[in-house]
Amino acid sequence: KQIILLPGDGVGKEIMESAKRVLNTISSEFGHSFTFHQHEIGGDAIDQSGTPLPEDTIKACQHADAILLGAVGGEKWDSLPAYLRPEKGLLGIRKTLGLFANLRPVKGFSPLLDASPLKEEVIKGSDILIIRELTGGLYFGKPSERREDGEVVVDTLYYQRNEMERIIDKAFQSAQLRNNHLTSVDKANVLESSRMWREIVDEKSKDYPDVTVEHLLVDAAAMKLITQPDQFDVLVTENLFGDILSDEASVLTGSLGMLPSASIRSDGVGLYEPVHGSAPDIAGKGIANPLGMILSAALMLRHSFGLEKEALEIEEAVSQCLEQGYHTPDLHMKGGQEVGTKEMTEMVIDNLT
Amino acid sequence: KQIILLPGDGVGKEIMESAKRVLNTISSEFGHSFTFHQHEIGGDAIDQSGTPLPEDTIKACQHADAILLGAVGGEKWDSLPAYLRPEKGLLGIRKTLGLFANLRPVKGFSPLLDASPLKEEVIKGSDILIIRELTGGLYFGKPSERREDGEVVVDTLYYQRNEMERIIDKAFQSAQLRNNHLTSVDKANVLESSRMWREIVDEKSKDYPDVTVEHLLVDAAAMKLITQPDQFDVLVTENLFGDILSDEASVLTGSLGMLPSASIRSDGVGLYEPVHGSAPDIAGKGIANPLGMILSAALMLRHSFGLEKEALEIEEAVSQCLEQGYHTPDLHMKGGQEVGTKEMTEMVIDNLT
Ligand SMILES: CC(C)[C@H](C(=O)O)[C@@H](O)C(=O)O
Ligand SMILES: CC(C)[C@H](C(=O)O)[C@@H](O)C(=O)O
Repeated sequence: KQIILLPGDGVGKEIMESAKRVLNTISSEFGHSFTFHQHEIGGDAIDQSGTPLPEDTIKACQHADAILLGAVGGEKWDSLPAYLRPEKGLLGIRKTLGLFANLRPVKGFSPLLDASPLKEEVIKGSDILIIRELTGGLYFGKPSERREDGEVVVDTLYYQRNEMERIIDKAFQSAQLRNNHLTSVDKANVLESSRMWREIVDEKSKDYPDVTVEHLLVDAAAMKLITQPDQFDVLVTENLFGDILSDEASVLTGSLGMLPSASIRSDGVGLYEPVHGSAPDIAGKGIANPLGMILSAALMLRHSFGLEKEALEIEEAVSQCLEQGYHTPDLHMKGGQEVGTKEMTEMVIDNLT
Repeated sequence: KQIILLPGDGVGKEIMESAKRVLNTISSEFGHSFTFHQHEIGGDAIDQSGTPLPEDTIKACQHADAILLGAVGGEKWDSLPAYLRPEKGLLGIRKTLGLFANLRPVKGFSPLLDASPLKEEVIKGSDILIIRELTGGLYFGKPSERREDGEVVVDTLYYQRNEMERIIDKAFQSAQLRNNHLTSVDKANVLESSRMWREIVDEKSKDYPDVTVEHLLVDAAAMKLITQPDQFDVLVTENLFGDILSDEASVLTGSLGMLPSASIRSDGVGLYEPVHGSAPDIAGKGIANPLGMILSAALMLRHSFGLEKEALEIEEAVSQCLEQGYHTPDLHMKGGQEVGTKEMTEMVIDNLT
């Protein structure tokens, strides 16, 4: 299996090293063979090659079985023009590779629930899979431009029917693998695109009679995620709503540094990255939390390689570390023991072997 | 002063009655003269006149000094075609009257903080004014349509420069009346409209040197509202982001039923409504919480009539009621006394006189 590593900016390099070590452990334990090739993306690529997404990074990714991404961005590049910003690298790779389905599982770890901004009785038992459409909508619709000498500006929310269909199918199928409940989020009382989305969800629901479907307006969803997070199973929505709601959901458990994400397409090729950002303030200090990256590698094993057992091993090893009381400085744990990136990675590997 | 009353649907009628009684008390205490005219809107208007926003409602509102709205919508009308839905009445009146600035104060009441889904140490001290642009963006941009036999759908995020300027000015001015801190929320790493928004905020900030400005991406804002709600003073954003973030913020304090809103234009004419919905399940039972409506009437006195003292009197009377332990069934208060809509209104009036 060919894995492309895109460490990117900030803490990206350190946590990528951790993921690689964990994957090497898995490959020797289970007798798999993973090969790694590292390439540039984001601010790192801007510094080295003058562009956030160099041609040879694109080429390498096009031939990969899966991609691991650390993080992109940082203040250093914030004043560059839009087309030269680190984020463009990320948007470009998603679009070029057609990674239309963004999966963001949000689940609390009991030893960390204390760090949640929510009361324990509210957050307890929450286990949400947010599925965000990732290659359409306002992110890529044209026109997106100034008009009339800058007196007017326009962005376009554009979707093709089949773009909605494939993500909605993915969501129904994901619900079938979980608790058979699907919440579809839109703004059908205002947007034509949302009305089409809702129609497609209703049509598709006939093909998945075992899944119960609930429609929720995006404003109501933003409320319910806070007041009743335990009432969700799978939540599916379009690109921009998904951006907002998945980030909102990511802070509910109080352990953002732990959360993985997958961006995949139908043939199983996918890009895996932690939800947290590049955290330039702690980069190079050896204290970044590698668990979001390690759990992203687990998602890769599951979704791109079909290695469910190996994925579960990693997830269990991570849970065990937390139960043993180990945590990086970003996580608050009463009576736990604070460790750095390398030690945390060692602990995971110890629990694996 | 001519006040148009639009009770609308569900609990709208009951809570409107409460607001009217409180305003009558204020007018006799302070020697003002308010005249009230009641008109139809929403589902109520659909049932009576076949349209969610009848001509004579529009006419009456066009000549009013201010408008009080109860709530619109309900399952009963959910299957009607989009142009005939109760919400169209609300969107129509905002647009027709040019009510471009939606003000949504979010502030906890200490006797109710127990009902917050957030831990007390997180929510304590929060006092946010969300300012949402209300008559532009994706809500009204054209085209908004299906194309190619329904294979494609498009909505348009459209803004004129002056539409952004006036709401941003309003936000700076509001910050000056509060703690001189403004958070401007956009998605400038993706949307051209957001880049123009951010430029205008930066230009305008020179005119308000006493106000400190922070830019936040909408996804980051959705997180920070939950993790650090006490770090906001005034938050300004475009229409759809404002819809999502203001609803998200409205549940933080745990007392949605208490929250008022104002939708105003530059000459002071405004529409005032509680944030909560029409709650058809409890309509007619005499248990609806009238405080969001009563506090909306207070905002009317402040923003449309310049009656700051009178507005404060109402706000203090409401706080006193809560401190005395009175609350409607929607509010959870340890050791408080549950009362109905009428009694709650009496308590407010008692505290006023
Ligand atoms: C960096 C940015 C363009 C990106 C997005 O909005 O998709 C990020 O917020 C994310 O969610 O991965
Ligand atoms: C009813 C709906 C169209 C409306 C909106 O989205 O503006 C509502 O959610 C609001 O916030 O007042």
